[in-house]
Amino acid sequence: MSIATGWAATAPGAPLQATRVDLGPLGAEEVEVEVEYCGICHSDLSMINDEWHGAHYPFIPGHEVIGRVAALGSASKGLEPGQRVGIGWNAGSCMHCRHCLGGDQHLCGAVQATIVGHHGGFADRVRAHWAWTIPLPDGLDPVSAGPLLCGGITVFKPLIEHHVPPTARIGVVGIGGLGHMALGFARAWGAEVTAFTSTPAKTEQALAMGAHRVVASRDRTALKAIAGSLNLLIITVNATLDWAALISTLAAKGRLHVVGVLPEPLALKSGALIGPQRQVSGSPTGSPVDIATMLDFAARHTIRPQVEVFPLAEVNAALARLAAGEMRYRGVLKVA
Amino acid sequence: MSIATGWAATAPGAPLQATRVDLGPLGAEEVEVEVEYCGICHSDLSMINDEWHGAHYPFIPGHEVIGRVAALGSASKGLEPGQRVGIGWNAGSCMHCRHCLGGDQHLCGAVQATIVGHHGGFADRVRAHWAWTIPLPDGLDPVSAGPLLCGGITVFKPLIEHHVPPTARIGVVGIGGLGHMALGFARAWGAEVTAFTSTPAKTEQALAMGAHRVVASRDRTALKAIAGSLNLLIITVNATLDWAALISTLAAKGRLHVVGVLPEPLALKSGALIGPQRQVSGSPTGSPVDIATMLDFAARHTIRPQVEVFPLAEVNAALARLAAGEMRYRGVLKVA
Repeated sequence: MSIATGWAATAPGAPLQATRVDLGPLGAEEVEVEVEYCGICHSDLSMINDEWHGAHYPFIPGHEVIGRVAALGSASKGLEPGQRVGIGWNAGSCMHCRHCLGGDQHLCGAVQATIVGHHGGFADRVRAHWAWTIPLPDGLDPVSAGPLLCGGITVFKPLIEHHVPPTARIGVVGIGGLGHMALGFARAWGAEVTAFTSTPAKTEQALAMGAHRVVASRDRTALKAIAGSLNLLIITVNATLDWAALISTLAAKGRLHVVGVLPEPLALKSGALIGPQRQVSGSPTGSPVDIATMLDFAARHTIRPQVEVFPLAEVNAALARLAAGEMRYRGVLKVA
Repeated sequence: MSIATGWAATAPGAPLQATRVDLGPLGAEEVEVEVEYCGICHSDLSMINDEWHGAHYPFIPGHEVIGRVAALGSASKGLEPGQRVGIGWNAGSCMHCRHCLGGDQHLCGAVQATIVGHHGGFADRVRAHWAWTIPLPDGLDPVSAGPLLCGGITVFKPLIEHHVPPTARIGVVGIGGLGHMALGFARAWGAEVTAFTSTPAKTEQALAMGAHRVVASRDRTALKAIAGSLNLLIITVNATLDWAALISTLAAKGRLHVVGVLPEPLALKSGALIGPQRQVSGSPTGSPVDIATMLDFAARHTIRPQVEVFPLAEVNAALARLAAGEMRYRGVLKVA
C-alpha cells in the first residue's frame, strides 16, 4: 500500500514525469485514498514553477482529489473503507492549537498543504489526516466534484465567513476556474449576481453559469454605471485591475474580498473605506466543516464545476492548456 | 433668536473673525441650541483651510457642541427646553432614505454636516435636526464632553460596528485627539490595549490613559516582536506609516480599521489578507443611536477627553496650537 504511482515535478518548470514514490507507513491518524479524479488548480502550476519559493522536488502535485478510502490509520475517525471522499488544498493540521480546536483548522500554524512537503493527487493514491478527508455527499458527480475541494471552497468561504445574506448583490471578478464556481454559488445563494470579465467571449457563458448581468471589468464607464450598488465583490483574478473603480461599485458597508494572490499591492484610498464604511478582506480555502457545508450546498443545488477531463498520462498537455488560459473552466485528470 | 454671534472663516486659511450671522427661521424639525462649550477638531482646520475643497465662506466652524436646548421647532421630538445636549459632525439627514430608516443616518446621501453649508458651534447658538441633537446623560462633565461628539464616536464606532468583544487585543495607532479617547474606550471595554506612537514623550501619558503597553509605531523591531497578536488596530493618524509592518501585528481574522483620512493610498499585499483572513475597514462618525450609546458608556466609565480650555475669543490661538500639533489632547472653547 505504501507505493504511489503518479506524475511528479522534478525541477522548477520541468514537465512532470511518471514516477513511483514510497509514501511510508500509514500514520495512526492518516487515511489512504485511492484516487479516481483530481482537479488541476493554478496553485499546482505555481508550485511546479516554484513561484512561491520553497518547493521541494520531486513532488506529486494535485490537491482537488476525489477517490475512495483505501486504508484507515488506527486512530482515524468517522470514515469507512470504500467511502467516497475528497481532499483539497490541506491534508492535515495539528488538531490541538486554538485554531484547530476552534474549528478554523485551515488557519493552523502547522497546517499541512497537500502538495507542499507532501505528495498530492496526480497519482493512484494519496494520504491525508482523517479530519481533512471529507466525505462526498450523495448526488455530487464524482467526475466534476474535485475542483470544489479547493477552488470551490475558496469562493464559497466569503459567503459563510461574512454571513452574506441571500438579499445581497454579489459581484464576481474574473470568470475562470474559481469565478465560474462563484457564479453558481452566488446564484444558488439567492443573490443578485454580477459577473465582471475582461473577455467579452465569456459573456454568454457567465449568464448561463448564474450571472444576472455581465460587466466589462476594465470599462470605467460600465463600472461607473453601477457605482454604489454591490454588497460583496469576490476578486478571483491574479492581475492588477482598477481597484478604485471596482471598489466604487460597492454600496455603503460593502466588502471587497480577495481570494487570489495579486501580483501588486492593492492601493486603497482611505476615503473609499471611511465615508461609506466599506471593508476589504481576504481568505484562503476553508476548514473541514466549511468544505463539508459547501459540498452539501453544491449537491442540493446541483452546482457542478464545468470541466475538461484528461487522462492522467496527458497531465503535461493539460497543464500547458491551463497555463495558456485556455481551460474552460477547470481541468480534471481521470486517474483510476 | 435668529442671529448667531460667533467666529467665522472668511477665506481659506484666514484667521477667524468675530461675526454675526442670521440663522433664518427655525425649521419645523430643527432645534436651536445655546452653546456652552465647543471642541476643536482637526476637521475644523481642514475646512477652514479648504483642504477638502467645497467650503463656502463665510462659515462658522465647530462641531463638538455642548449646550442647552433654547428653542424647539414645531415638529421636533424627544427634547425639552433647557435640556443639555450635544451636536457632533452631523446636524441633519433626510430621515426617509433606507440608511436613515435603517438606523444608519450617518450614511445618508443627503447628510448635513454641521460645518459644511451650515454654521457650527464657535458661536452662541447653533441649529440641528432634533434626531441629531443628542441628550447628554447625567454624570458627563459638560466642559470636556464636546470632543466625544465627533472624535469620541469616531473611535468608538469600530468597537460597536464590528462587535469587538472585551476579550480582544486592541491597538490604537496615534495618540492625539482621537487616539487618547480610543485608549480610554478600549480599556473600559475590557480589552488588552496597546498604544502605538512615534512620540516617546507620550508613553507615560498613554499608559495613564488606558494603555497596557506602548509600542513605537515606526520601530520595525518592536512591531515584529508583537507580530500576529492583535485583533483590532484603530488607525487615528493622518500620516503614512509602514502599513505592512503594522498589519503584521494582527492575529488571524484581525482587523485594521482606519478613521482618519490618509494622505496616500494604503498599499496592501493580498497575501497579508488572504492567508490569515485579515480585514481592512473604515468608518466615519456614527448614527444618533451610536452617539447616545457611546455617551452612556463614557458616563458609566468616566471617560473624559483630556482638554485644554480657551475662551471663544482666543479661538485663533487655539487653532494655531492644534495646527502645530501641540494640543494635549483636545482643545475646547468656552462659549457661554
